[in-house]
Amino acid sequence: MQPSQRYGLIMAGGRGTRFWPRSRQTRAKQVLPLAGERSLIQQTVDRLRPLLPPERLFIVTNHHLRDQIVTQLPEVPPAQIIAEPAPRNTAPCIGLAAHLLQQIAPGASLGVFPADHWIEQPDAFLPIVDAAFSAAERGELVVLGIQPRWPETGYGYVEFHAGIEPGALSTRPVVQFREKPDLATAQTYLASGRFFWNSGMFFWTAQTILAALRQHLPQTLTLLASLPPLHDPGFPAALELAFPKCENISIDYAVLEKAANVTGIATSDFGWNDLGSWNAVYEIASKDDRGNAAKGDVLLLNASGNYVEGAGKLIALAGVDGLVVVDTPDALLVTTRERAQEVGRLVKALEEARRFDLL
Amino acid sequence: MQPSQRYGLIMAGGRGTRFWPRSRQTRAKQVLPLAGERSLIQQTVDRLRPLLPPERLFIVTNHHLRDQIVTQLPEVPPAQIIAEPAPRNTAPCIGLAAHLLQQIAPGASLGVFPADHWIEQPDAFLPIVDAAFSAAERGELVVLGIQPRWPETGYGYVEFHAGIEPGALSTRPVVQFREKPDLATAQTYLASGRFFWNSGMFFWTAQTILAALRQHLPQTLTLLASLPPLHDPGFPAALELAFPKCENISIDYAVLEKAANVTGIATSDFGWNDLGSWNAVYEIASKDDRGNAAKGDVLLLNASGNYVEGAGKLIALAGVDGLVVVDTPDALLVTTRERAQEVGRLVKALEEARRFDLL
Repeated sequence: MQPSQRYGLIMAGGRGTRFWPRSRQTRAKQVLPLAGERSLIQQTVDRLRPLLPPERLFIVTNHHLRDQIVTQLPEVPPAQIIAEPAPRNTAPCIGLAAHLLQQIAPGASLGVFPADHWIEQPDAFLPIVDAAFSAAERGELVVLGIQPRWPETGYGYVEFHAGIEPGALSTRPVVQFREKPDLATAQTYLASGRFFWNSGMFFWTAQTILAALRQHLPQTLTLLASLPPLHDPGFPAALELAFPKCENISIDYAVLEKAANVTGIATSDFGWNDLGSWNAVYEIASKDDRGNAAKGDVLLLNASGNYVEGAGKLIALAGVDGLVVVDTPDALLVTTRERAQEVGRLVKALEEARRFDLL
Repeated sequence: MQPSQRYGLIMAGGRGTRFWPRSRQTRAKQVLPLAGERSLIQQTVDRLRPLLPPERLFIVTNHHLRDQIVTQLPEVPPAQIIAEPAPRNTAPCIGLAAHLLQQIAPGASLGVFPADHWIEQPDAFLPIVDAAFSAAERGELVVLGIQPRWPETGYGYVEFHAGIEPGALSTRPVVQFREKPDLATAQTYLASGRFFWNSGMFFWTAQTILAALRQHLPQTLTLLASLPPLHDPGFPAALELAFPKCENISIDYAVLEKAANVTGIATSDFGWNDLGSWNAVYEIASKDDRGNAAKGDVLLLNASGNYVEGAGKLIALAGVDGLVVVDTPDALLVTTRERAQEVGRLVKALEEARRFDLL
């Protein structure tokens, strides 16, 4: 199979409430320039370009974000930027892209990439993607596992058999997938050398994943298989009708934990970060000699280890450590780096208080 | 001497940099409503009204604030609201008021009150003021000492002889004045029962204090004694010329530490607070059941013991304790209650950075 038959699916449907107040329903994490000048989804497209030109990308997002993504990515054909009528987790999203791909390029392979991750070393990343596509083209369902750097409790894990050499570009069988562990479990995972972070990046041919969905998620597959081709005038209405009836389930749970031909690449670290909270953005930001990462007009006095983002006005921090301070024109967040994971709960509280202007 | 011969001087010249970013050169602490609906200087005038009607008040402030004070206090004759041409600490300010008073009401008594203090129980305060005026009318230089509630290192102290009954309304000789002590010294002061906080409130007749200034600060007194009466058309120009030549010195240091006829009233606590920092404002504010004091549109999640002041937009605090967060249209402060004393250093840093728009 030729490299020209490789396509990408960028999953851009999330909301990213942990980046409130910067992120809102109409300005989700993936369309924000959280690290660098370009938005995370723009960086995702840029990074893949040497292997996947933009005209071979599908982007699946939601109605709140589609127009912005079309604007941010003029190089991607707008018809291939699709808004899900309802959020249904990753399995229907991937099934939809595989179905559409199979109609235009039967037998092509598909790499699946979250829109909102950070990769420090794209040069180390691309050969891995290339190797994963090659394995996919041999009929494997391939997941990228990332060598863990700490006992993270916020990620899922992929277990391999013993004897791994991280960094080898060959695939190996996956023993099992594990959901987010508690800290003690995560520590045993880290010590074992056999558990790798589940990156959420997957590779398969359209044919292989459609066959797996037909076996493990037949109802959803039937709904998706009934859709007309992307450029058919009836496509949007048919999608609107069929998609909400699909099961709300992740590809991991629906297929990968069950299928026999699941393999993974146990990569060494290429600076992957899922940017799960303001603290993750702090980790990759440049810092002053007291460990403060500050954007905007910021004055620091006896302050260390803080993440500060301004919105125009001066922000002065005095005698505080480890805080996250994010100012926007209509809302200000003050929390700690340690508690930054809990920012989503503020968004829930705002929903309960019916503060729709701030969501 | 009749009570009608009692006058008040409200000293309103300070800048209050520790209340940045609310306080600025043109919006100093005393003209802000830091506690309650009315500004601190308005509350000072209100509190004294049962003893001192507004037409018998002198207010000495600076050019940045005079117009605002005239607006805030329409009941005080504008001519009696005087802007110092230059800051010269308390001795010249008091000498000026005594000189002007002596010209319009020879032999009258003068109570001196900082414009920016908080008094929780004005009903307990007024009888003390009345007693202090009576002692002043007998020729004493009277200071109000406040029974200390903790070993404060930010106040000066007044030492009395042993055997004090706090709350007695009679004056007693002052042994000596003490500058701000270190913590160990402040603790011995508190334990001794003989040391009281120097409130900065003083009572004397114009004649007594002018005589003391003539003895202890003759050059300054000569400059002030040369000034024409307040309503003389030449007064402003003469003041502009003479005042900057006065010595820059406090009344405590210039007179009270040296004069023989200094007495004090050792008061029991009447809820006096010099509002020296945002933490002091926190202390007197009403709080929720987790000890947060919040003004404005504030959302708190797992937060306790914080002081928050909004300027319109929502402020969300999550998982933080003991912070001070003060938002204004052009500057935002984040510090801790414990470090709130150091906010003045931020203002210095802004001066050094020539951020005049924010001073």
